[in-house]
Amino acid sequence: MVKPKLNLQKFMRGTVWLVGTGPGDPGLITLYTLHAIQQADVIIYDALVNSEILKMAKKKAKLVFAGKRGGKPSFKQKDISNRIVGYAKKKLRVLRLKSGDPFVFGRGAEEALKLIKEKIPFRIVPGITAGIGGIAYAGIPATYRNNNHSITLITGHRSLSKSNRSINWKALSKSTEMLVFYMVLGNLSYISKALIKAGRKKNESVALISSATTAKQKTVITTLENCSNLSKKYNLKTPTMLVVGKNVSLRKKLKWVE
Amino acid sequence: MVKPKLNLQKFMRGTVWLVGTGPGDPGLITLYTLHAIQQADVIIYDALVNSEILKMAKKKAKLVFAGKRGGKPSFKQKDISNRIVGYAKKKLRVLRLKSGDPFVFGRGAEEALKLIKEKIPFRIVPGITAGIGGIAYAGIPATYRNNNHSITLITGHRSLSKSNRSINWKALSKSTEMLVFYMVLGNLSYISKALIKAGRKKNESVALISSATTAKQKTVITTLENCSNLSKKYNLKTPTMLVVGKNVSLRKKLKWVE
Repeated sequence: MVKPKLNLQKFMRGTVWLVGTGPGDPGLITLYTLHAIQQADVIIYDALVNSEILKMAKKKAKLVFAGKRGGKPSFKQKDISNRIVGYAKKKLRVLRLKSGDPFVFGRGAEEALKLIKEKIPFRIVPGITAGIGGIAYAGIPATYRNNNHSITLITGHRSLSKSNRSINWKALSKSTEMLVFYMVLGNLSYISKALIKAGRKKNESVALISSATTAKQKTVITTLENCSNLSKKYNLKTPTMLVVGKNVSLRKKLKWVE
Repeated sequence: MVKPKLNLQKFMRGTVWLVGTGPGDPGLITLYTLHAIQQADVIIYDALVNSEILKMAKKKAKLVFAGKRGGKPSFKQKDISNRIVGYAKKKLRVLRLKSGDPFVFGRGAEEALKLIKEKIPFRIVPGITAGIGGIAYAGIPATYRNNNHSITLITGHRSLSKSNRSINWKALSKSTEMLVFYMVLGNLSYISKALIKAGRKKNESVALISSATTAKQKTVITTLENCSNLSKKYNLKTPTMLVVGKNVSLRKKLKWVE
């Protein structure tokens, strides 16, 4: 094996790296993410970061939990940002570790803007996002030439119903064959009704996928109309995605795990 | 360092793995992708796969180029699928290596369906897709709470104009704040006009990003109206993405490479 040129940047003291760990399977972290974890002095990690991944940290690294969990007391975004800045000002190598990709529904942009404001150098290390890599583990391709030219990734968080006016449900339901809603459990009834009202067929096949790519992965195939009830019946846990679109039906053939 | 549990599946003889290498930076391949490359007997790779990544293969591995290049003679999908099947039937470990993610505009679904038909066991190894990880290297977050709840990834390939009727441009332009078109160069004039006609503002900021995450990365900020001319003026090479949406303006602050 010829040694490839990786050109991985050195993690400098007093800088912050915003790093994604992918959807859960530790094998899906990137070489860059591994490189970051092995150098970090302090790792501020979210609830969904797989604990196996944290074991890759150096022995002396300080591990700081900063998870947000629905219904339980959780850390405020402002406090998390302030802690990140505080550690960086102590000249530590600060790793902000997130599940998925730091720039997909992960507050990574807010944290990066705060670092800019505080004049702290940073870099981004992308990760695989669940709406693409996670659905693949359920045998659902993001795109398939015969079915779709595009895919839309959408937050399914409760805030979606409050910010209802900013979502054009009619346009959304007609724009793209494939729709993937993240973190959907608290809001599933609202979302499925909104899509049906906006024109998607109530009996169209949808998938609910929880803990995608992990040993706990569970996939339920149902219809838009029934998905909310079924998520309760099967007692699905967070994180769960809702996948709407023709490619859901390919799972019958393409299922290769579970 | 405690050794983490990676649970990486062994690459068995006579099986095919469809594997993504991410947008270009070799540091953005996953541990699973590295694991696959190091075991493969034959690697059938696309034009955009970084040559540094191929250097990770074992010495005896057979490397087979199967790239599609606009305007140049290229391999037909059917021939590629048949070659994959042929090598698998010879009981080799067959790695189908693609840039980005195998299930995002990469014909991965077609190839997987062919394997099902031929009863050849396979697995998918996702990769980071350029429309998310690549735009991050240009300082453009896929999502930012103040601006957008969703992002749409769309092929920008020439076939898009021919399959015009299958794209609801009006719905697309209103559905999502952020739109990322892949492989856009041959079709940029058509796409920008279709979006303006469908209601997007002609003077809204857009980004053209070519060779994202590689040493050749180039980002041009322009407007929807002018993007087609500017891609020629700056002589942008394939692969180039078009990013439309408010988060493009965050690049001014968040730019951290180039």
